[in-house]
This record gives sequence, C-alpha cells and structure tokens, in this order.
Amino acid sequence: MSGDDSRSQDLRAPVVELLGLVAFGELLAFERMARDAALAPDLRRRATLGEMAAVEVDGYQRVAARLAEHGADPERAMAPYVRPVEEYHDATEPKDWLEALTKVYVGDGIADDFLAEVAALLDAPDGDLVRRVLHDGRYAAFAEAELRAAIEEDPKVANRLSMWARRLVGETLSHAQRVAAERAPLTELIVTGTGHEDGVQKLFQRLMTAHTARMDALDLNN
Amino acid sequence: MSGDDSRSQDLRAPVVELLGLVAFGELLAFERMARDAALAPDLRRRATLGEMAAVEVDGYQRVAARLAEHGADPERAMAPYVRPVEEYHDATEPKDWLEALTKVYVGDGIADDFLAEVAALLDAPDGDLVRRVLHDGRYAAFAEAELRAAIEEDPKVANRLSMWARRLVGETLSHAQRVAAERAPLTELIVTGTGHEDGVQKLFQRLMTAHTARMDALDLNN
Repeated sequence: MSGDDSRSQDLRAPVVELLGLVAFGELLAFERMARDAALAPDLRRRATLGEMAAVEVDGYQRVAARLAEHGADPERAMAPYVRPVEEYHDATEPKDWLEALTKVYVGDGIADDFLAEVAALLDAPDGDLVRRVLHDGRYAAFAEAELRAAIEEDPKVANRLSMWARRLVGETLSHAQRVAAERAPLTELIVTGTGHEDGVQKLFQRLMTAHTARMDALDLNN
Repeated sequence: MSGDDSRSQDLRAPVVELLGLVAFGELLAFERMARDAALAPDLRRRATLGEMAAVEVDGYQRVAARLAEHGADPERAMAPYVRPVEEYHDATEPKDWLEALTKVYVGDGIADDFLAEVAALLDAPDGDLVRRVLHDGRYAAFAEAELRAAIEEDPKVANRLSMWARRLVGETLSHAQRVAAERAPLTELIVTGTGHEDGVQKLFQRLMTAHTARMDALDLNN
C-alpha cells in the first residue's frame, strides 16, 4: 500500500486485531440476539430484536470491508477471538428474558466501553468506524429500558438480577483479561497509546467504575 | 379506507392471513439462520448466514409495514402461526450443518412454493410484495449449492441426507396441512382463487411434484 508512514505501519497489526475483535463481536451479537428473541415475552419485542440484530450484521459488514481495505482477511482477523468469546457465552447462558437483558446490559456495557477506549487509541478512520458501529448498536439501551420497567413493576426481581449481574461481571472481566493477555498487539496498543506501563490495569479499573455506575442506575447493587 | 370495492373487502381477511404468515416466516427464518450459523464449518459461511438473515429481517419489516397499511396489527396477524411453525421447527431440529442445509432446501422449498401459489391469488401490490420478499431470500439457493458440493465430495452423505429429507417432507406437509385446515380464510382464498373445491388438495399435489424434482436435482431420492 502506498502512503504508509512508519506510524501507520506500526499500527497495522493492532488495527487488524481490534477490527477482528469488533467484527466477530458484531457477528456473534446478531446470533445471540436471535437466541434472545426466542425468550422474548411477545412478538413485538421478538421483532424488535430481529431489527436490532440486522443492525449488527450491517456493523459486521462495515468492519469486514475495512479489514479488507487494510489487506487483511476478515476470517483470519476474527479467528483468534472465536474460542474465548464463545466460551464466555457458554459460561453465561441466560435462562429467561430478564437474564438475557441483564447479560446485555452488563456484558455489552463493559465490552463496548473496552472497545471504545481502544478505538480512541487508533487513527481515524478506524477509530471513528469502531465508535460508529458501537453507537449504532441499540441493544444495551433497549435492555436498560426493559429492565427498568420490569424492576419498577416487580422490585423483587432486582435481587435475583443483582446476583446474576455479579456472576456476569466476574465472567466478563476474566474472559476480557484473558483476551487482553493473549493478544499482545492489543496490549501493546493500550500501553503505547496510554503511555503507561499499567495502562491495561488502569483501563480495567475505569471499566469497573463505569460498570458500578450502570448497576447503581438500575439499583442492581444489592 | 377509501376505494374499497366488494372484491378487495372480501379479500381483506385472507390478505392479512397470508401476510401474517409470511411476516412470521421471515422473522423465524432470521432466528433459524442464526442458530444454523453456529453449525457453520467456518467463519466465511457463518458470516454469510448473518448477511442472509439480515435480508429476512428486511423482508419482515416490509410485510409488517404492509399489514399496518391494511389497518392490521402485525403481532395479531402473526400470532396464529407462532405455535404451529415453532412446533414444526422443534420436530425437525438439525444435528449438524448438512442437516440444517437439507432442512432449508426441503422445508423452505415447499413453504416458498406454497406461499408463492397463494400470493398469486392476491391482488397486486400484496401478491407482488410476497413474491419479492420470497425472491430476496437467498438461503435455499445457498443450501442447494452447499449440498451439491458436499455430496460431490463425499457421495455417501446422500444416503443419510435422503433419509433426513424424507422425515422433513413428512413433518413439513403435516404441519402445513394443519395450518391450512386451521386458517379458514387461507383455505377459502385457495378454493375461491383456483375455482376448485379440491383446490387445496391439488395445490399440495403440485408442491409434492416440485419437491420430488428438487430431490432428483441433488440425487436425494435413494
């Protein structure tokens, strides 16, 4: 490719790493929404999940196209993330509609914060693309509104969902930390980008702070 | 609504019946493709299923919008079909990728033929809309190409898939006949539209003829 300076050359690998992770995240979000749709209490919500899932497929396509522009094969870029992301989902299979929504609110909340932080370390247009794709996803906001209504209607569900949320945050962080540890270019990007040796640790601290605020917002910290 | 003559008044109920069935079929096709995606042998095919599923969601949205134009609530129009269609899918859960593709080739093939025949009895633009939505679905053609390649590579799989296809056609027809019997406006439309008392029976004979031709095309009639 022409016009490469040394900086963009250095960033080539981390960009492909992050876009590969985002692409597989979008693809799996579509698949998870379809499963969650089967748990929806009515056809209106079931159809809404379908409509939101189509947005994730669109996000996948945009990120895959950008990977191709970088000369990277989307399948190869996604491959390292298949096992850890699927293991996370297997370990956190929701049993009903409210558990599914809580998983989205907790897990997607942390994942989106993580991806947005790393995207901020990339040059535009890659960083912009990741932010736009994350922004287009409406499932977390939908989940928050649904959970708020369910808790208002029956405050007792907050106890059950608080316990489930604690399990989810443990699984989310342990899987995210494993991915960060295994994917050296991603870790290097964070350390270089933040200019701190403990950049990864500090990033996870910020993720936890934002997570706690989300739990407080729904009174899920009992 | 203005401009209703007695014919379109008579057709109001069957139109809503058929559009409700097509809408729920599109919504469930999206959900099924996401499940099938988890069986895909590689990320390329997995992503392809996602892209095809997004087309089904788009089809759902177009049919739901048309139902609303008819003054019908999409959820109410779909509701009668939820149980029979889900029971069909529960009775025919594929165990692997090739079984999933065979199910699409057999089941969607028959269902699409059925819907296209009934759509031909509707006035435009409803009939045109159903035909366009069916035409946009690419999963059956994808399944045929994948199955053809798999059978060419290992002819022994044809035996296993032939047995599976026989079970599928039995389940597909018995569920389709139950739906036709339960939904009087649909049956009336077929009888009135074809001008024959035995219009439904003849329609099912045509579906079987087309099904047999599809099985022959892949040598799945052993």
